[in-house]
Amino acid sequence: MTDSEYIPGRGTLVEAFDRLRLVVHRTPVLTSEGLNRLAGCRLFFKCENFQKAGAFKFRGASNAVLQLTGEDLKRGVVTHSSGNHAQALALAARMHGATCHIVMPENAPEVKKDAVKNYGAQITFCPPTLADRERYTGEIIAQTGAVFIHPYNNYRIIAGQATAAMELIEDFPGLDHIVTPVGGGGLLSGTLLAVKHFSPGTKVLAAEPEGADDAFRSLRAGRLIPQTSPHTIADGLLTSLGDRTWPVIREHVHDILTVSDDEIIESLSLLFQRLKIVVEPSSATVLAAVLKNRNIFSGKRIGLILSGGNYLPGFDHLRKQ
Amino acid sequence: MTDSEYIPGRGTLVEAFDRLRLVVHRTPVLTSEGLNRLAGCRLFFKCENFQKAGAFKFRGASNAVLQLTGEDLKRGVVTHSSGNHAQALALAARMHGATCHIVMPENAPEVKKDAVKNYGAQITFCPPTLADRERYTGEIIAQTGAVFIHPYNNYRIIAGQATAAMELIEDFPGLDHIVTPVGGGGLLSGTLLAVKHFSPGTKVLAAEPEGADDAFRSLRAGRLIPQTSPHTIADGLLTSLGDRTWPVIREHVHDILTVSDDEIIESLSLLFQRLKIVVEPSSATVLAAVLKNRNIFSGKRIGLILSGGNYLPGFDHLRKQ
Repeated sequence: MTDSEYIPGRGTLVEAFDRLRLVVHRTPVLTSEGLNRLAGCRLFFKCENFQKAGAFKFRGASNAVLQLTGEDLKRGVVTHSSGNHAQALALAARMHGATCHIVMPENAPEVKKDAVKNYGAQITFCPPTLADRERYTGEIIAQTGAVFIHPYNNYRIIAGQATAAMELIEDFPGLDHIVTPVGGGGLLSGTLLAVKHFSPGTKVLAAEPEGADDAFRSLRAGRLIPQTSPHTIADGLLTSLGDRTWPVIREHVHDILTVSDDEIIESLSLLFQRLKIVVEPSSATVLAAVLKNRNIFSGKRIGLILSGGNYLPGFDHLRKQ
Repeated sequence: MTDSEYIPGRGTLVEAFDRLRLVVHRTPVLTSEGLNRLAGCRLFFKCENFQKAGAFKFRGASNAVLQLTGEDLKRGVVTHSSGNHAQALALAARMHGATCHIVMPENAPEVKKDAVKNYGAQITFCPPTLADRERYTGEIIAQTGAVFIHPYNNYRIIAGQATAAMELIEDFPGLDHIVTPVGGGGLLSGTLLAVKHFSPGTKVLAAEPEGADDAFRSLRAGRLIPQTSPHTIADGLLTSLGDRTWPVIREHVHDILTVSDDEIIESLSLLFQRLKIVVEPSSATVLAAVLKNRNIFSGKRIGLILSGGNYLPGFDHLRKQ
């Protein structure tokens, strides 16, 4: 039995925090008087868009890679993803001398293929179905002995993601609420565990797109309802909860708040204008949820985890001038 | 005679620095290993996009407003501008209890009108010609006794803008080069004076859009050539040098480097992608100039002043999804 088979406890989280201290960026926390006035509460933005590889995912990926044995590192790691986890795992593997295999749908955007290639990963393209992704991944594992690192349904990943909230809690103790986006639930379940052990008075809420609201529906139903046919601009939040994230969420989350794509775009625009930072649409869900639910947040001190910044807006209107 | 009639010397700059210490944001300096590799040199980005009111202009405006007498403050300040100086002066005036009058062309974008209104300034709209702007401004001065604060051709403004480079020099001593954008020359002349007095071994270069290259042409000709019919996406850099900025630039600048709008857009995109920050097109000229002139900058340590962040890219492609 290893610690990777249990829900991370206080000791496991502290170990992850220490392990990652010199590996991840301790990201800044930004504030804006203008946004505070607009929201009617005090907002503390934890800027994981400034994290290495551009998203919190680097925390979990590093925590997983750093616990591999020398033998494991030689055989390498593998995952199927076209998003931030792929980039994060590729960078973490390169930093620690492991080969990284990424199984990616052949129709993934070029920019994502390039990002993963630039971090030195080996890409295997597959047809764009979950069954194909899993089959190709299985073949790589059979051929190479690479260790599979799931994007979120993995306790070492969850413990790594918890360190973002641990930093936030250390920098700003006594927050009334912390709000994170929820997709597969890695960041949310990590945050819930961090708060449970290090800031038990803080309530954790999650923001979820209306078009991919499996966590919202699961919480209401009291059982895991997988996401089918998600449709949202928040492309980091399309996935379903897993059997390692859902139980933590069910037990500890205060509530899940859904937001529309229009509300996400409005908040995305506010973050660009007021904080002058680049975040991806998934990150904007947290501000959208706060602005939509004044009854919950009015007058409170709220930590918001901006999950990532891997998004490039259009500059075409400049070219037209 | 007052200090406002002389080119600011060391003492005046130190006084401006002390005056502004608790008023302006000491903006962060960001670095990126990826951009260093791309440029073949070490880049230190001074992030005035995070300054109050979104640009370095708040430094000069505050330095000017803070030296007004109680009587002057009562009568207020006035300027003609549709850009960052208007917002900066409006905010500085509000912070120090002065009325602020802004003369703005009636065809200015709504977003700029709103920004100035939100800072509590009184806007007077005028027809979009320089003659009308000046006439309307003269009328406001005649009616109210307000003090005219020119956007750049004013030694107190220049001394205020110098404090950005002073902070950069304090944080990163011994830079080989500092590169600033040049429009009217307030930031550039301030930077030149800061470097003259506090980092004489550093060479200062300016980046200028090809479509508004009056500083480039003036330097080559050895005399002030005003800008006529500027055309560039760098909308903060359309103005001509003034008789207080040009002599400082002529005497001290190492060189002026021009860049095309396509090069500006390419660098704008790089700053969004790699630094994850929002800057306006004018700010991207400095990176574009460095990437274009590897012969000058190769292997060097270079400070780049990112002048502002008052720019909102389009999110329309998200709405289409």
